Amino acid sequence: MINFTFQNSTKIIFGKDTESQVGQETRLYGKKVLLHYGGGSIKKYGLYNKVIASLKKANIGWVELGGVQPNPRLSLIRDGINMCKNLDIDFILAIGGGSVIDSAKAIAVGAKYDGDVWDFFMRKEEISDALPIGVLLTIPAAGSESSTGSVVTNDDGQLKKDIGSQLLLPKFAILNPEITFTLPSYQTAAGVTDMMAHIMERYFTNVTHVNLTDRLSEGALKTIIINAKRVFDQPNNYDARAELMWASTIAHNGLLDTGRIGDWASHMIEHELSGIYDIAHGAGLAIIFPAWMKYVYQHDVNRFAQFAVNVWDIPMNFSNPAETALLGIEKMENFFSSIGMPTTLSEVNIPEDRFDEMASKATFFGTLGNFVTLEKDDIRKIYELAK
Amino acid sequence: MINFTFQNSTKIIFGKDTESQVGQETRLYGKKVLLHYGGGSIKKYGLYNKVIASLKKANIGWVELGGVQPNPRLSLIRDGINMCKNLDIDFILAIGGGSVIDSAKAIAVGAKYDGDVWDFFMRKEEISDALPIGVLLTIPAAGSESSTGSVVTNDDGQLKKDIGSQLLLPKFAILNPEITFTLPSYQTAAGVTDMMAHIMERYFTNVTHVNLTDRLSEGALKTIIINAKRVFDQPNNYDARAELMWASTIAHNGLLDTGRIGDWASHMIEHELSGIYDIAHGAGLAIIFPAWMKYVYQHDVNRFAQFAVNVWDIPMNFSNPAETALLGIEKMENFFSSIGMPTTLSEVNIPEDRFDEMASKATFFGTLGNFVTLEKDDIRKIYELAK
Repeated sequence: MINFTFQNSTKIIFGKDTESQVGQETRLYGKKVLLHYGGGSIKKYGLYNKVIASLKKANIGWVELGGVQPNPRLSLIRDGINMCKNLDIDFILAIGGGSVIDSAKAIAVGAKYDGDVWDFFMRKEEISDALPIGVLLTIPAAGSESSTGSVVTNDDGQLKKDIGSQLLLPKFAILNPEITFTLPSYQTAAGVTDMMAHIMERYFTNVTHVNLTDRLSEGALKTIIINAKRVFDQPNNYDARAELMWASTIAHNGLLDTGRIGDWASHMIEHELSGIYDIAHGAGLAIIFPAWMKYVYQHDVNRFAQFAVNVWDIPMNFSNPAETALLGIEKMENFFSSIGMPTTLSEVNIPEDRFDEMASKATFFGTLGNFVTLEKDDIRKIYELAK
Repeated sequence: MINFTFQNSTKIIFGKDTESQVGQETRLYGKKVLLHYGGGSIKKYGLYNKVIASLKKANIGWVELGGVQPNPRLSLIRDGINMCKNLDIDFILAIGGGSVIDSAKAIAVGAKYDGDVWDFFMRKEEISDALPIGVLLTIPAAGSESSTGSVVTNDDGQLKKDIGSQLLLPKFAILNPEITFTLPSYQTAAGVTDMMAHIMERYFTNVTHVNLTDRLSEGALKTIIINAKRVFDQPNNYDARAELMWASTIAHNGLLDTGRIGDWASHMIEHELSGIYDIAHGAGLAIIFPAWMKYVYQHDVNRFAQFAVNVWDIPMNFSNPAETALLGIEKMENFFSSIGMPTTLSEVNIPEDRFDEMASKATFFGTLGNFVTLEKDDIRKIYELAK
């Protein structure tokens, strides 16, 4: 186990009807709020009206910026930054999933900076200040509601890059599983894949003796797998939705990082896909993660066998752990397929003509991965394996 | 799953040589510190000198109050409160295990209150202010380094009572597993039992559909069990010590409470033992917990069978889950014995003459337990079962 510092101060407010608390929580930090959201779904299902009522009750003013797209765009973020600067906004309330929250985080940083916010994504500046933000979560997936990171796509050149800072940690996150009953099954499945990927990125590590975080990670993965099945049978099953929602936060709040070094190559390799082709991040991960696993599993067959046994209930073949490892990867792929995720690029009509370009972009800042270090050529081979 | 709010802002600084950071972390909150500790062990092993050097480097003044006993006493707490009030102390640094930290928490509350601090323990007053505290942990057990609670023994009448508030959450907790290499094996074992008990108190719940916290709890318990065995073979095994130390914090930081209601009867029943007989809290739990389990397991045989299968690797007897449940309890008792813990009152020479008095005191505030509600007579029977 390696040394670590862990602190996550986000206040999680979890359960039925909790959205009614948004006004009183916001009031602790701000008087004039930027309400940031995506498409119209928050209005369709009555959530918007509840939020407005709660803000009014708490005597909070607001301006609105909707229209966040999946893979949030820098252009809208720049609009949000201008609004914050010109309208004396002191708090950002993100109502949505990972894209909305990541967009809100970028606005929060840009609102306290004189230059162009993209400077932070290009590592030209370090984050030293940000507006406080709060979250009302609608899609369990990205874990951004209690994480320090944000991933944004630059409209020019389709570069997808990230920033991270303790200053980006939301002050509170309100999670009502009932809000997720109406999520389309494809979005539910992409969310399930994303949260699983967040755990798996951390699971495959070269740090030895990480028993506690291994066991916690395996427990979270098993919870997600069984409850995903329940949710696909019964979209209004509160308890199953609740398990998924809380697991998505735990998957990415830093707890499962403690004492270890994660890999994160698959996320970066996927970002090039969803940066160019605009497929759901989770769907891209369902394609890339199995390919990455097949490419690297021989680096530590025993860890992949442990994953197969402890997460996927594959019986250990003690005379051939590699077989066990591969059966685990296969069962994971079958699981992704069973919830309607693609597991090959051809299923989502992504041709191979840009593999080389994507591999180049993925290595823009250097090699990828910690479990196995990947060069441009390795990444091209992983795209090939995912064909 | 039930609604919950979860927030734990304690900064965990974990790993080798981390005690050197104590000065800079303290400096964020105070200029004049009450250094609170137990016996002389922190001086014997050089920890005291490192702390003093770090405080000096950060330009922090200090006064000292040592002498905290296991099951910390109200009398010393009152001394600490007077010191804080008279000497303009603005921060309390607890160096020790649960007793020292709990003592520091009580001082922190009393220092900001004009009346007698025992008022809070008797529920006459609500906590509305407290000095900030920091922790340098020396014994992984109580989880107090990142919890909201404190348990104190009143010297008059040997009453052992608790308080709890978000204001008692330490600002930081420094955890260096190397410091625990020299712990006597009895203290290590009592700590192991205490952290396991913290998880088990939460595990036995009537709230249905708590998959995620069940799996996380089982994972933490399995980690503790295997690493306890390693530590008894190799007291200087850093990684095994690290797993135990981090597990002890996770066991009690609120995460494993989320979405469920714990029981806590065993802790209260044990408090009467260690309140009167001054045995280690962990040793008392090793005696009381199995007895409590035998008394209540029929209330939810399936949950006890799940515990036996998922924590103790007992094969499920599908035609007789009660057998599985009892085998799990038996294996747990054997584990406690194997690490040198008593599992009966007779082993620690506690006679039955005061069972009735202890059962009365345990129900001072009313019935105990949430999983099964226990009256005075039930508690007496549990002491009988533990004979």
